[in-house]
Amino acid sequence: MHRTPIPLNAVLRAAASAVGRKEKEGPLGHLFDLRDPTDRFGAKTWEGAESEMQRQALNLALAKLDWTDQDPQALFAGDLLNQCVGSAYGLLSFDIPYFGLYGACSTCAEGLLLASIAITGGAFSKCATVTSSHYCAAERQYRTPIEYGAQRAPTAQWTVTGAGAFLLTDGKDGAPRGVRVVRGLPGKAMEAGINDANNMGAAMAPAALDTLLRFFRATQTRPEDYDRIVTGDLGFEGGAILSDLMLAQGLPMGDRYTDCGQLIYHRKSQDVHGGGSGCGCSAVVLASHLLPQLERGELKRILFLSTGAMMSPDSLKQGENIPAVAHLLELEAPHSSL
Amino acid sequence: MHRTPIPLNAVLRAAASAVGRKEKEGPLGHLFDLRDPTDRFGAKTWEGAESEMQRQALNLALAKLDWTDQDPQALFAGDLLNQCVGSAYGLLSFDIPYFGLYGACSTCAEGLLLASIAITGGAFSKCATVTSSHYCAAERQYRTPIEYGAQRAPTAQWTVTGAGAFLLTDGKDGAPRGVRVVRGLPGKAMEAGINDANNMGAAMAPAALDTLLRFFRATQTRPEDYDRIVTGDLGFEGGAILSDLMLAQGLPMGDRYTDCGQLIYHRKSQDVHGGGSGCGCSAVVLASHLLPQLERGELKRILFLSTGAMMSPDSLKQGENIPAVAHLLELEAPHSSL
Repeated sequence: MHRTPIPLNAVLRAAASAVGRKEKEGPLGHLFDLRDPTDRFGAKTWEGAESEMQRQALNLALAKLDWTDQDPQALFAGDLLNQCVGSAYGLLSFDIPYFGLYGACSTCAEGLLLASIAITGGAFSKCATVTSSHYCAAERQYRTPIEYGAQRAPTAQWTVTGAGAFLLTDGKDGAPRGVRVVRGLPGKAMEAGINDANNMGAAMAPAALDTLLRFFRATQTRPEDYDRIVTGDLGFEGGAILSDLMLAQGLPMGDRYTDCGQLIYHRKSQDVHGGGSGCGCSAVVLASHLLPQLERGELKRILFLSTGAMMSPDSLKQGENIPAVAHLLELEAPHSSL
Repeated sequence: MHRTPIPLNAVLRAAASAVGRKEKEGPLGHLFDLRDPTDRFGAKTWEGAESEMQRQALNLALAKLDWTDQDPQALFAGDLLNQCVGSAYGLLSFDIPYFGLYGACSTCAEGLLLASIAITGGAFSKCATVTSSHYCAAERQYRTPIEYGAQRAPTAQWTVTGAGAFLLTDGKDGAPRGVRVVRGLPGKAMEAGINDANNMGAAMAPAALDTLLRFFRATQTRPEDYDRIVTGDLGFEGGAILSDLMLAQGLPMGDRYTDCGQLIYHRKSQDVHGGGSGCGCSAVVLASHLLPQLERGELKRILFLSTGAMMSPDSLKQGENIPAVAHLLELEAPHSSL
C-alpha cells in the first residue's frame, strides 16, 4: 500500500497560537492570537512557561469552535524538552486521551499527519494537536543558559517561543469551511554527516529533500502545481541548501518556496542569524499565517513540511551526527472558496 | 465517535526481543531472542548500546517474516532517553518512514495502538513498532550514574535493559496466524499527587485504573471475561495499588492480573525491590512471553496496558508531580487455534 503519499480526508477546523515578545515584534507579530511580552506566561520557570503556552493555545482553539475538552477524542502533542514535559504538564488539565510524540521540530506536521490518518480511517471524528518550543528553555537544555550570554554562530537559529494548537474533524459535522488535509507523507529518519548543533538547517535539508522528492515522484506533480512549498525551520542556511538541492534534481521551487523560520523574524533588525527554529516555529506560522491565507482562498494548495533534528546534547558529545526527519502535508483551501 | 474503545483489525505477525544480563538471568530469560551478558551490544556508550538493541530487535523481527526494511510502510518508535535518541539513532539504518513517540514506558502500547489504528483505517498494510530501555543509560539520566553506587529505595524499580520490536499487518497477506489486535483505548495524561521518582508504580496506578474503568464500562465486560489483565511496569507496589483500587470499584481482578515488571525478575534473589520498569519491560515480556502464549492458544484473550510516567528529572526538581498515562490493547489468540 502506501510508502507513497497517503490519501487523507480531514478538515482543519480551527487553530490558535501563543507567542513571546520577539515573535510579537516580528513581521507576523500582529497575526498571533496571544502574545506575552514577558515570555513567562505567568509561570515561575521557562519550562512552566512553555507548558502554560500549550495550555492557553489549546484553550483558545477550543474556544474558537465553542468546544470543550469533551469534544476531541484524542490529543497528539510533543515538544523539545527532555521527556516532552512541555506537553505532559501543559495538557494535564484537559480530559482528552493523550498520544505523546517526539519528532523534534517535525512534531507539528507529525501530529497533524497522525491525527489525519486516524480521522480518515474512522478511529476518531475530532482530534486536537499541540506543539511548542521556548527560547529560554531550549537554550539552557541544548546549548547554554541565556544568562551566560554566549556568542551565537552565524548559522545558529533562534528557537521560537510559541505554541500552536489545531483542531481537526472528519468534516461530517456539517460545517463546510476549513482547510482540508488531502495527502500526507511521513518522513524517514536520516543523517547526512552534519554534527554542528549551530547549523541544524544543513542537517535537516536532506530529510526535507528526501520527502519532497518521494512526494513529487509518486504524485507525478511538480513544484509549480502548488502555490507554496513551506518547510518548518530550515531557516536561511538550510532553506538555501534545500533550494539548491531541488534545483539540482530538476525541480526548481523558485519564489513559491519559503520556510517558517525565514518568515517569523525580521532577519537583520532582530539579529536572528540563521532564522527561527523549534517545534513552535512551524506551528504558529501555520496556525496564524498560512491557514488564514488558505481559508481566504489567497492560497489554493500548499505543501507544508515540518522538519526535525532529533539529536540530544549528549549524543553530539558522544560524536554522533544529527538525525533528521521531515513529514509532509498537502493542504487545500476550503471547497467553498475554490 | 470513539472516546470509547476503538474497534481495531490488525494482526501481530512477528515480534522479537533483545535483553541484557539481568533479564537473561530472570524467570523469562530463556524466552528472549537475543541476550547479551555484557549489556553493551558492542557499543561504546550505554546510549549506543540501547540504540543497537533496537536495531537488532527490529532486524530479528524482520528476519522472522523474511521481510526487508522495504516491507513496513511506517515505523513507530520511542524510548526514555532525552530526545528519544535510542530510537532516532538505532533505527537510522532502516529505510522506513519514521514516527517518533514519547509516552515514557507506555510507548510499547502507544506504538502498537497507533500502528493498529493506521492499519485498520487503511493508511498502511504493514507497520513496525520498536521501543527500548537500558538500565545504565536510564540510571544516569534519571537518578545517578551507576558508578556512584547509590542506595536504592524499597519501592524503586529496576529499569529493564531490553528492546522489543513488533511487525503488524492488516491480515490480508494470506497468512492466517498471528495474534489479533481487536480493540484499543488510548490513555489520558493524569497525575495523582505523587512526586517520588523512586515510587513510579504509585504514580502510574491511577492512570491504569482510569483506562481500565473506562474500558470495562464502555464494553460492559468484567475482568473475568479476559484470561489475563497485564500492566506494563507498575511493579509490586503499583500493581498492588491497582488491584486494591479495582477491588474498591467492584471489579476484582484476582489472579488474572499481573504486571510485566513483576514477571521479568526473580523478586528476592535478583534484588530488584519494586520490580522491573522501563519502555523495554512491557515490550520484551509481550514479545517473548505473552504473544507466544496467545499464539499457542494457552491464552485466548487478554488486556495489555503499558504504563508511562512522563516526568523529567528537571520537572521533579521544579516541584512538579509525576504525570502518567496508560494505553490499552485487547489481544486475541489467532482464530485458527480457537
